[in-house]
Amino acid sequence: MFNVTAVLKRLVIGPALRSEELGGTLLPKRLALPIFASDPLSSVAYATQEILLVLTLGGLAYLHFTPWIAAAVVFLMTVVVLSYRQVVHAYPSGGGSYEVASTNLGPSAGLVVAAALLVDYVMTVAVSVASGVDNIISAIPELAEYRVLMALVFVGLLTAMNLRGVRESGRAFAAPTYLFIAGVLIMCGTGLLRYLLGDAPVAETAQYGIEPDPADADLVGLALVMLVLRAFSSGCTALTGVEAISNGVPAFRKPKSRNAAATMAAMGLIAVTMFVGVTALAIIAKVHIAEDPCRLSGLADCANYTQRTVIAQLAASVFGGSSSFGFYYVQAATALVLILAANTAYNGFPLLASILAQHRYLPRQLHNRGDRLAFSNGILALAVVAGLLLWAYKANVTSLIHLYILGVFTSFTLSQTGMVRHWNRELRTETDPVLRRRHTVARVINATGALITALVLVIVLLTKFTQGAWLAVLAAAVLWVNMRAIRRHYDTTAAELATTDPRRDLAPPSRVLGIVLVSTLHKPTLRALAYARALRPDRLEALTVAVDRDASAELQRKWEEYGIEVPLKILDSPYREITASVLVYVRSVRRESPRDVVAVFIPEYVVGHWWENFLHNQSALWLKSRLRFTPGVMVTSVPWQLSSSAHADHPAARAPGAVRRGEPASYSRR
Amino acid sequence: MFNVTAVLKRLVIGPALRSEELGGTLLPKRLALPIFASDPLSSVAYATQEILLVLTLGGLAYLHFTPWIAAAVVFLMTVVVLSYRQVVHAYPSGGGSYEVASTNLGPSAGLVVAAALLVDYVMTVAVSVASGVDNIISAIPELAEYRVLMALVFVGLLTAMNLRGVRESGRAFAAPTYLFIAGVLIMCGTGLLRYLLGDAPVAETAQYGIEPDPADADLVGLALVMLVLRAFSSGCTALTGVEAISNGVPAFRKPKSRNAAATMAAMGLIAVTMFVGVTALAIIAKVHIAEDPCRLSGLADCANYTQRTVIAQLAASVFGGSSSFGFYYVQAATALVLILAANTAYNGFPLLASILAQHRYLPRQLHNRGDRLAFSNGILALAVVAGLLLWAYKANVTSLIHLYILGVFTSFTLSQTGMVRHWNRELRTETDPVLRRRHTVARVINATGALITALVLVIVLLTKFTQGAWLAVLAAAVLWVNMRAIRRHYDTTAAELATTDPRRDLAPPSRVLGIVLVSTLHKPTLRALAYARALRPDRLEALTVAVDRDASAELQRKWEEYGIEVPLKILDSPYREITASVLVYVRSVRRESPRDVVAVFIPEYVVGHWWENFLHNQSALWLKSRLRFTPGVMVTSVPWQLSSSAHADHPAARAPGAVRRGEPASYSRR
Repeated sequence: MFNVTAVLKRLVIGPALRSEELGGTLLPKRLALPIFASDPLSSVAYATQEILLVLTLGGLAYLHFTPWIAAAVVFLMTVVVLSYRQVVHAYPSGGGSYEVASTNLGPSAGLVVAAALLVDYVMTVAVSVASGVDNIISAIPELAEYRVLMALVFVGLLTAMNLRGVRESGRAFAAPTYLFIAGVLIMCGTGLLRYLLGDAPVAETAQYGIEPDPADADLVGLALVMLVLRAFSSGCTALTGVEAISNGVPAFRKPKSRNAAATMAAMGLIAVTMFVGVTALAIIAKVHIAEDPCRLSGLADCANYTQRTVIAQLAASVFGGSSSFGFYYVQAATALVLILAANTAYNGFPLLASILAQHRYLPRQLHNRGDRLAFSNGILALAVVAGLLLWAYKANVTSLIHLYILGVFTSFTLSQTGMVRHWNRELRTETDPVLRRRHTVARVINATGALITALVLVIVLLTKFTQGAWLAVLAAAVLWVNMRAIRRHYDTTAAELATTDPRRDLAPPSRVLGIVLVSTLHKPTLRALAYARALRPDRLEALTVAVDRDASAELQRKWEEYGIEVPLKILDSPYREITASVLVYVRSVRRESPRDVVAVFIPEYVVGHWWENFLHNQSALWLKSRLRFTPGVMVTSVPWQLSSSAHADHPAARAPGAVRRGEPASYSRR
Repeated sequence: MFNVTAVLKRLVIGPALRSEELGGTLLPKRLALPIFASDPLSSVAYATQEILLVLTLGGLAYLHFTPWIAAAVVFLMTVVVLSYRQVVHAYPSGGGSYEVASTNLGPSAGLVVAAALLVDYVMTVAVSVASGVDNIISAIPELAEYRVLMALVFVGLLTAMNLRGVRESGRAFAAPTYLFIAGVLIMCGTGLLRYLLGDAPVAETAQYGIEPDPADADLVGLALVMLVLRAFSSGCTALTGVEAISNGVPAFRKPKSRNAAATMAAMGLIAVTMFVGVTALAIIAKVHIAEDPCRLSGLADCANYTQRTVIAQLAASVFGGSSSFGFYYVQAATALVLILAANTAYNGFPLLASILAQHRYLPRQLHNRGDRLAFSNGILALAVVAGLLLWAYKANVTSLIHLYILGVFTSFTLSQTGMVRHWNRELRTETDPVLRRRHTVARVINATGALITALVLVIVLLTKFTQGAWLAVLAAAVLWVNMRAIRRHYDTTAAELATTDPRRDLAPPSRVLGIVLVSTLHKPTLRALAYARALRPDRLEALTVAVDRDASAELQRKWEEYGIEVPLKILDSPYREITASVLVYVRSVRRESPRDVVAVFIPEYVVGHWWENFLHNQSALWLKSRLRFTPGVMVTSVPWQLSSSAHADHPAARAPGAVRRGEPASYSRR
């Protein structure tokens, strides 16, 4: 059984890597772009759509706000990209927003950013995968009933790829991202060209009207403003993941900062071009979609109608219908890049979690690198939570998006504020006029970024809180409280464990009193007695608890028959409690001679299958766990291996993967 | 936290009992009757109803079969009761059908009976509780939506009562059973008297016709026979639990066999009288019920109509409507006795499981008596499985009944066949003519029983298999296979562990080599070093695995600074595997000196809350579990208690319940 899991593990994640091979997993720009930027690039596939879905709540009347909202999003994206280029230069160590906020605004603010980002990475996986599945269903509507299953399968595949390590996943991701960029740009170009030539593409839903939702019909004043702001909030999903590059600087090839900043600029340019193109084309082709397809007027059987995504409708209208090569190409590339966009989070989440673990805000295990040098535990944690969300929200993009961008803008705002402080401090000591001018410009950029993202954060909070964002806020708050508690626990523990007087701590106890626990006289017991005697404690006795009087009389008889020289002490236990009786006895021994140490020897037999443990009394296990709480006691297990245990032992005899590495024993090299 | 659970445990199950108090839990006949017979008696509440529900599948046309089917059931019950009185006399040790079948037909047949009975006990709990809830809902229809919740609460209450021990639950159960018997007999008497006086009671559903189910309309030939046989199978539920007394003989006061046989006869007489009375009354009052209330013709709003049980309709018609005292009395008594009928299984299941555990067919834990001398683990296992069934089948009596009686008749048939063999063997050696005649009569009774129950078993299999009984068959088969596997495992283990040469097994190893595992130099490590030195092994060294080179260099520096005399060995581990490296090293040491023993000392720190364990690396735990597989190694944990662990220790310092018993230490009395 063990062997099967070991083989499976190797098949999924590949051979183990040596620690020295870490340098080999660094990324050139052409691979870093698809890995870290697939999230903001791919969000083009749903950002426009989410703007339209909110505006059409009021029918077709408010669709003329679309270009203005898109312009606001483009402006926001430009500001954020420019701001984060400053972060990449100033903080090349990869803590990203978390590091900026902690350093400049204090650890509590840093933890707020960290909590927000962790929640956000999870949402990135959930939203991207859900949207990818949506686009697959747009191309092949028959798959609609397998929505959730498909989403979970994709999460599983991504997890497996990432457990194999960063660079290999980068290669797998490069091609689709570039194919997607090319596809969308060609689609926008062709569509706009046809428009200019007077042959504008027409979406399949252009013929339908949209009934306004009763709650959102004929809005005026504040209510209208709120609707437009909600549409803007939804459009801001285009900005998610922009900060991923700033968190991933250490994964870049040298010069790390400059390469990262260049990648960021390229990403911003491409994302803005694509977003503008798709939105313009959606207006030209008159794409009409609604949250509830039954609000589309002129549609015969709305209950069985699967709405296609905006991208799908555009591709069909530009390339000549939903059976053209162009349509299938764009849908395939979009679906693939969306699924892979989740990979941005698979790169960001484990790295951030490992940094937090190093700072002792998260359990230490998150800082362990796995066989392939990836932070395996972080990857698995991300996969589990994202999978649960996809399952709970039935992989519905619009429901999931409500939980999304809140975290992004929290970290934007705090890190940009932190950057302003950073430049203030730099300017206080800097004398070189060239650098002073550069810092001043940077400060203006970051201050603008902080102000604008703070404004957007307020808008998002106002428009999304009751729609589901409260859950994201709650999750981040719980994370924040727990991370502080974990740090406090580690600090207390470390202080308590530190030795102040090694010589006193090393002083041996005056005597060792050995106690061998006995239930029946079989081979394991005899071996425990033999081993205990070999260690020559100052006093040695055997101890049994008389749960059944006949059995203990029989034990005493055999004890004498075998001529065992160790004295046998029998504890009466009318209430059939083994653990309590032994504990009380051990403590009484300790009380009599407090400067001595008690060594308890427990005979055990080792079975070959985990389930066989259920067939044997668990009293030894329970007793051991209780004895640990007693000061001045050491507990020795004397195992006796049943023959069935031999086969279960193989994988430990050789370290996993050792055969393939051709190394029988790693210690022999020293 | 521990204290709260301990207090809760005491509140629910009462103070612990001494082993010597076991004799005090034996039962007089007047308590044994309600405890062991509440199942067959209470099945009167649903047996008639299930016959009617099957017959009305064909509309009202086949209801005239009812008296003939009832007569067949009564005949069957008489045969079975007479047969089991023989079992009680011949096998007073309480193994019941299981013991009879194993002794006379071999252990495999015995296990078939045991598996069937275990499944059946679970079904008894599920069906009785579901039917009890059904009768509560008949009296108070507003509770219909809480059906499953109520069922689960009742299972919980029964479990708590039984964990308190047999005798106390017996008292709680005596009154309602007698009240139920009295209520049903008075109802039948009054109803029949009114019929004889020409004022026959009329059920509330007498006015409705019943549309036949399309699949079962106008049946002829074999199809009609099958319908009647299905009705008969359902009516056989009246026989469930008859064997409970034969399994519970040891719980009777002396003379056990005679008391048990008398109780059985009384039970048979009462059950037959009640069943005949209820069925006759149902025919007289023209109770018309259908599986689907929408097949009742003449009913206005069938979707919101809750059908009352047969008992409820009879009580309402006899005592003057559903707000009369008589109606509420009968419903209350019926519901209570049905819930308590599940107690038959709570007595039978743990006892049978404990016997099987004693025979090493089930895990040993099922033979442990709890604080109150009941077989707690068996009680809990029964409660969990029955609760799951009630939840999965939404507490629907008719669905659950399909899984039911198969096991009963399997064990009936096999045990009666076994009894025939038993008498054959007795007659071969017996010479006393009085006893010979008695044995011959008994053999005829048991042979008749075997033949007839075998016939019924075939009928049940034919009519119920596809309706759900396959699940019961599968469960019993899985149990059977597992019980054999468990027995094989225990036998192999015992053979392997038995000592053949105690003197050789006791011979101590020639030398002990001590290894102290070190990660960093804090207090726990220093204590482990001190304790290891106090035990004076023949050689002692410290071992560390260099996962991080800087950390291990720092460790070496401190080692010298503190002047620790034990040599420090550093294992290189480029693949970051601690466990594998240590294992490979320990084995190499063992290979060099195979006659020596290696003592591995592992420093551990003990935290106060279970969740704190997640915050510390689990490598020690994993390493310990792997080292157990290595022959010639003993593993010593040297715990260091963090101050937070002190409060977690209280409940173990005193055994649970010790304060109330006024006994600080149980061992002090010897």
